[in-house]
Amino acid sequence: MRAPLDPPEILLLGPGPSNPHPAVSVAMSAPLVSHLDPFFLTVMEETMTDLRALYQTSNHHTVPISATGTGGLETLMFNLVEPGDEVIVGGIGYFGQRLAELAIAAGGVVRPVEVGWGEVLDPEAIAREFERGPAKVVALVHAETSTGALQPLADIGRIVRENDSLLMVDAVTSLGGVAVDADGWLIDAAGSCSQKCLGAPPGLGPITVGPRAIDAIHHRSVPVASWYFDLRRLFSYWGEEDSSRARVFHHTAPIANIYGFREALRLIHTEGMEARFARHQQAHDLLVAELAEIGLGLFTPETHRAPMLNIVEIPEGVDDASIRGSMLERGIEISGAFGPLAGKAWRIGLMGTNATAPVVSRLVSNLKEVLGR
Amino acid sequence: MRAPLDPPEILLLGPGPSNPHPAVSVAMSAPLVSHLDPFFLTVMEETMTDLRALYQTSNHHTVPISATGTGGLETLMFNLVEPGDEVIVGGIGYFGQRLAELAIAAGGVVRPVEVGWGEVLDPEAIAREFERGPAKVVALVHAETSTGALQPLADIGRIVRENDSLLMVDAVTSLGGVAVDADGWLIDAAGSCSQKCLGAPPGLGPITVGPRAIDAIHHRSVPVASWYFDLRRLFSYWGEEDSSRARVFHHTAPIANIYGFREALRLIHTEGMEARFARHQQAHDLLVAELAEIGLGLFTPETHRAPMLNIVEIPEGVDDASIRGSMLERGIEISGAFGPLAGKAWRIGLMGTNATAPVVSRLVSNLKEVLGR
Repeated sequence: MRAPLDPPEILLLGPGPSNPHPAVSVAMSAPLVSHLDPFFLTVMEETMTDLRALYQTSNHHTVPISATGTGGLETLMFNLVEPGDEVIVGGIGYFGQRLAELAIAAGGVVRPVEVGWGEVLDPEAIAREFERGPAKVVALVHAETSTGALQPLADIGRIVRENDSLLMVDAVTSLGGVAVDADGWLIDAAGSCSQKCLGAPPGLGPITVGPRAIDAIHHRSVPVASWYFDLRRLFSYWGEEDSSRARVFHHTAPIANIYGFREALRLIHTEGMEARFARHQQAHDLLVAELAEIGLGLFTPETHRAPMLNIVEIPEGVDDASIRGSMLERGIEISGAFGPLAGKAWRIGLMGTNATAPVVSRLVSNLKEVLGR
Repeated sequence: MRAPLDPPEILLLGPGPSNPHPAVSVAMSAPLVSHLDPFFLTVMEETMTDLRALYQTSNHHTVPISATGTGGLETLMFNLVEPGDEVIVGGIGYFGQRLAELAIAAGGVVRPVEVGWGEVLDPEAIAREFERGPAKVVALVHAETSTGALQPLADIGRIVRENDSLLMVDAVTSLGGVAVDADGWLIDAAGSCSQKCLGAPPGLGPITVGPRAIDAIHHRSVPVASWYFDLRRLFSYWGEEDSSRARVFHHTAPIANIYGFREALRLIHTEGMEARFARHQQAHDLLVAELAEIGLGLFTPETHRAPMLNIVEIPEGVDDASIRGSMLERGIEISGAFGPLAGKAWRIGLMGTNATAPVVSRLVSNLKEVLGR
């Protein structure tokens, strides 16, 4: 017979998951109701409203997809891209390659625009790619979890719009920790997760889809190659803007996850978005300062660092895995890097509840001891 | 500002979700670890082992998909069916039609074999359909939630195997409440949910995929039209049978859901599968007897009733919606029916924690009062 679950208590300072807010866990344990219960329909409305505020958008089509963040991005790619469509994919690290793989799986023809790890794309590179020919979609990562770079988006949004294309953004690591101004930056579709800076466990893929993207979906020439992720079917349940139509069953929503996500959004708006973003920036600044005191620096250029995900250079002669192992023995998870940064950097996340001064101090004092500095 | 979530306490006796076991909610609130933490890799192994036992299978490829039950079925259909493949879909109600829609979305050519609502398929009907030509897959619903019918599968499995086809089963409502003997009945692929008879909240799609199905997937001529649901990519994370290969990142698993699901499976095996199935049958038998005392009967013929989902005929002159509304005021959810049964029957689920004599008595005594019998 199995014993009941007894997980270790770990301070999660990798690239995600972060430690969820305790109130989120309480909400996930609240009494379940049916997915068509009037109470739950109200929860759905509240969730859509609060998610729109976080994405800084008036897009009606703003919901958590019943899958993880990757499932939300697949939803966007499979609804926007038809077989044969050209997709410009900006690559600034691993998760840009992931977007390319999603585009290919959707039948798209990928035109990569890439820079080295740690760099971000110059908007002019996107403009030049359009000179080679039109594209249905431009897909980009906002905060690249593999390199710690934060991609500026506003100028790219303008260029994409001028070229009559659709801008799709992977906001998995950024949303909840920095501004994602979907309407202001002319983003047509964005996807994130319920974990990381949002403060709930992984399990949902919150997306927003703007009217130009919805129009493109309505004018597809072939059906979406998915039943589960088909946005037109999905919004028969979540409800189209014409609210006089009754909601009809699509799939049974993950009620407990949506309870927890609704609570995470409530906590974000109770704290205030500006205050929350400032808290993430302050924790980052403090981390940089305290790491400098023990002789550690960041890989990513200061001009475009994502505050919630810090790529810390491993000093010469220090063994990556053994330090991470020692930190884990002290109840603190930090993560290794991969690709060209494997063995050369740690990825240290300060996300959601963990973006605070006491967490930074606990991390750095332990790292100092483990490194013997 | 929003108030914290405060859902009503409802006894959930519709077709699902049912009330999860309290220990499952406790497990879902346990401290989160990372999806690549050694502790979580052990949880994954335990989950696979216990899910195999429930499916009565030795299939290595037995995991909860990171989506709801419908997402698990989409995973199976999209991996098994290539564009142009012929798929025999057995239809005994609404969820058979759903399987047909999934097959069409996967590019399949559907050959329906249908019977009237409340009936089940004669294995000979499948044999006759094979006389019209071969088919890659035969897809069937085990417990049809729209009609309360339980489809016998053993003889059909033999026929499908003789015709060198693959048997895919929707076990969403049956698993955990009645035997699903995947190996004994020659089922090649089955999908269920984490809720209903399994006792966790909705959010996962537990599947099992046998070696013949895996072989077919490995011999596909075109890639799976999904990145998220692509089983070959997915098992780079869950691990292939050659356990010497390190697990690599695919997507961030819904840790809390898998904690809860692992606890639900633990509770099932602690109770014992035979004892659990007997409890569901006894609750059903008691319901039928107690309903008869107040003059109510079941729609589904006694020869093939799914014990966990009872289709109760609404007496002449009784208003469906007002009775359900009165029951909900008393904190008890029962569900309406749809299609040809709309307004003519209630769907009453006795699933998981709710398949007990006290629950049946509470239900029937309240129904008696509300009906004035």
